[in-house]
Amino acid sequence: MNAGEIIGVDLGGTKMLLGVLDSESNVLWESREASTGQTEDELVDLLVREVNEAHSARPGTAAVGLGIPATIDHGKGIAISAVNLPLDDVPIRDLVSERTGLPVFVDNDANVAALAEHLYGAAKGTENAVMLTIGTGIGGGLILGGEIYRGSTGAGAELGHTVIAMDGPDCQGNCPGRGCVETFASGTALGREGLAAAEREPDSVLGRMLADGEAIDGKAVTEVALNGDPTARTVFDLVGRRLGVALTSFANTFEPEAIVIGGGVIAAGDLLLDPARRELEARALPPMNRTPVLAAELGSDAGMIGAAAMARIELEESEGGGG
Amino acid sequence: MNAGEIIGVDLGGTKMLLGVLDSESNVLWESREASTGQTEDELVDLLVREVNEAHSARPGTAAVGLGIPATIDHGKGIAISAVNLPLDDVPIRDLVSERTGLPVFVDNDANVAALAEHLYGAAKGTENAVMLTIGTGIGGGLILGGEIYRGSTGAGAELGHTVIAMDGPDCQGNCPGRGCVETFASGTALGREGLAAAEREPDSVLGRMLADGEAIDGKAVTEVALNGDPTARTVFDLVGRRLGVALTSFANTFEPEAIVIGGGVIAAGDLLLDPARRELEARALPPMNRTPVLAAELGSDAGMIGAAAMARIELEESEGGGG
Repeated sequence: MNAGEIIGVDLGGTKMLLGVLDSESNVLWESREASTGQTEDELVDLLVREVNEAHSARPGTAAVGLGIPATIDHGKGIAISAVNLPLDDVPIRDLVSERTGLPVFVDNDANVAALAEHLYGAAKGTENAVMLTIGTGIGGGLILGGEIYRGSTGAGAELGHTVIAMDGPDCQGNCPGRGCVETFASGTALGREGLAAAEREPDSVLGRMLADGEAIDGKAVTEVALNGDPTARTVFDLVGRRLGVALTSFANTFEPEAIVIGGGVIAAGDLLLDPARRELEARALPPMNRTPVLAAELGSDAGMIGAAAMARIELEESEGGGG
Repeated sequence: MNAGEIIGVDLGGTKMLLGVLDSESNVLWESREASTGQTEDELVDLLVREVNEAHSARPGTAAVGLGIPATIDHGKGIAISAVNLPLDDVPIRDLVSERTGLPVFVDNDANVAALAEHLYGAAKGTENAVMLTIGTGIGGGLILGGEIYRGSTGAGAELGHTVIAMDGPDCQGNCPGRGCVETFASGTALGREGLAAAEREPDSVLGRMLADGEAIDGKAVTEVALNGDPTARTVFDLVGRRLGVALTSFANTFEPEAIVIGGGVIAAGDLLLDPARRELEARALPPMNRTPVLAAELGSDAGMIGAAAMARIELEESEGGGG
């Protein structure tokens, strides 16, 4: 009956988005809950409660896919460590499966977002695509040969921790590195550079906002830049070019058919992408210098859609494999 | 009869190494010719002559694999561009196949070296391995999911052109980039840093060699460092750490089971690898900070062995595929 229905969960640092999707990725049922400020147990309880509710609403649901912003051991279904969620070596696949009676598959949130863009979005029709999800940090997803590339245990594709300045500043969170692209081109970096510009140019729009006590974060810089302010646009030019340095390394490495940029910062669109494209075009080896750099198309639904698609693929493989 | 025999050719910038290998990679016949100073036509003539001679010696030879230090269109068998060989958009697969009557398969030299180390050398038993071949420049090879990863047309895996310093010096050859790891950690860079050290410390072994008019190149720095000279070892420490920055990005991206370093500079062994390992361990995300960094095991035969292995795989796939 409903054998083709799958629950996809995007378990973000601030909210949990859950959907029941059919095989054509139509959303049949949806829920959204806050995920902040919970303990590990409370988070798992929330997840189980919402999955069970969705399963009651759509009784034919066949499996659950979880996309989590954490280092994942894909084979064992463990969330090893996360920056923005209280998940530390949690066997989340088995915990949720035991309490819902459904097969559960777990993957990194950026991996499943890349899968969603590959199947239904900007990277549709490609065999090899690189995706960056740029928000507070920078997540990476790789589609190679038409499949998610996860590394040896599932912890790979940490593209935000590609070094673009070997003597650069310390990276954030649990990264012991320096000069990672995440420190230069994340939403956090955008806010930091916007603040620096506001201090440098007190008469600019950003400068006056700062004087008025308004927060200068990535979102504020984006709004001001979209309204045409030249100072805010200079900030995007700087951040976009630094992004383009990392894209050069990805293009030279993967020779992908597309690089897709998603996450909160893509609200700025070509203000961010154009300087990145110019840098890639100037720096990468031919033919990689012609790699298209595209805005993600699925917006904030990419994680949920991709988590369901990942679970569908894993379920079919486990059934097809006779295991 | 000899259906399992394949000709592997490593067409390097200075010499061409050709071998006839059986299915266990034993070398049954071998030739070595200089490849410098030839025109494109002369190079193809040399290649055809040597392949025909090998084919006469081993009449059951089933195919030819060519490993070439060039950007390759793998599907079309074209050498698009090379730094050290006169190959510019040459349909080398068809040229050699027509004049030898044998099926020919073409790949990048670093790709096939990686395949050789994966099948028979330091990366044996891995599913995912990164290989750098460090000589005059830095070539890259990727084994992902047990197979060579080439990018969308075969031009990918240019790991030497991973940027580690976004404002760094211009790269060499046909690379329009800046601050690529090739500019910091190739044999050329080793010689340059050795020369700088010799000038800075005229009383050191390197300094006295310089005063005596001896060439300070990568090979000289290696010999002096292996003899225990502290100044030359400082050069390896610097170059090794810069190499380690790029390895950090590769580890975070691929979560490989091994990173293998080959090419001329590996004569220095742990003098180069230890500082690289320390940098990787300090900078990469867990669990990628524990990625083993290994010396290649097949030495200068890796290209020839890998070219034959690549052709064997391609031949089996083309036969198995019914095409």
